Amino acid sequence: MGRWEPNARERLERTALTLFVEHGYDATTVAEIADRAGLTKSTFFRHFADKREVLFGGQDILVGLFGEAVRAAPPSATTVDCLAAALESVAAVAFTPDRHDLAPQRRAVIAANSELQERELLKRARIASAIAEALRARGADDTTALLAAELGVLAFSTAYARWAAPDNRQPFIEIARAALRDLQAGATTLGTDTEARA
Amino acid sequence: MGRWEPNARERLERTALTLFVEHGYDATTVAEIADRAGLTKSTFFRHFADKREVLFGGQDILVGLFGEAVRAAPPSATTVDCLAAALESVAAVAFTPDRHDLAPQRRAVIAANSELQERELLKRARIASAIAEALRARGADDTTALLAAELGVLAFSTAYARWAAPDNRQPFIEIARAALRDLQAGATTLGTDTEARA
Repeated sequence: MGRWEPNARERLERTALTLFVEHGYDATTVAEIADRAGLTKSTFFRHFADKREVLFGGQDILVGLFGEAVRAAPPSATTVDCLAAALESVAAVAFTPDRHDLAPQRRAVIAANSELQERELLKRARIASAIAEALRARGADDTTALLAAELGVLAFSTAYARWAAPDNRQPFIEIARAALRDLQAGATTLGTDTEARA
Repeated sequence: MGRWEPNARERLERTALTLFVEHGYDATTVAEIADRAGLTKSTFFRHFADKREVLFGGQDILVGLFGEAVRAAPPSATTVDCLAAALESVAAVAFTPDRHDLAPQRRAVIAANSELQERELLKRARIASAIAEALRARGADDTTALLAAELGVLAFSTAYARWAAPDNRQPFIEIARAALRDLQAGATTLGTDTEARA
């Protein structure tokens, strides 16, 4: 078998997700994934450090995209504009229509395993840190940066859950923009609710 | 040595934190903690499942307090009132003046260890889930519940960091109320920033 296999990474990813759903994440071995994909274990390890990286391998890229998009937004962009730009950026790279069919499987595998759920929460915390740091670099005060980062992560995670629904046909970015608008309206409500009652 | 030791839990906690700071968390063993505290390993294990629980043992209580306080707030309470009530509740139980001197040590130990930092992030995520769930039970819509929960956790974690500063003398609840007010003002700004520019 040659050292280079066309689409090996994607074949391995799809096969792994199928096996994780069929047999459970813990019960699936790298050898089984490689075997079912018609590849070798060493090919697997050229693409992924371990089987968990099949689910979280894009994490560094994603975290980087969030931060870069916020930093690259024009000086006139508001904080919420920066969040919208970040969502545009990740939508274009990571949540494209050709990857939609993998998303329900990935979500199901993570939902069934508490250790993977923790990893997903940590991924979100890393995204929040990256957004907050990039906003601070644009001159945002600490409170705004932290709060906006949580708003961005909530828009992202809400949008991902909706986009990953098996019957969803709407593009990620449309769902994400709507989620961001909802959250922004929610922020207005929270910002005024005690005053409104007084 | 008797089965029951007065203040054994607190002695073990204080000794463990001192050793974690002196020798590092990973290098400290349960045997050393018990020995330095003048107690036995079995006494340690009557109070803590492992050495990590010295740092995170109060987590379940804390998560429970957040949820209960939100649920117990009067029907007229706004969402932000509920968050304030939750902060009052945890301030009274967990962040009392007699525990202040432990806080800088705990923070230093966690800051020095990436696995403990992850645990701290997961604790915050659990608190956020508990708040969001309790707000939903009061009839909040999903967006408001999720966003308010993040606001509550940010108020909590910001307040904890300020309260735990070695030279701080201000009570936790005062710091937390101020943090909540700042975050609420930040929410108003975020809620309106795109409109303001348009």
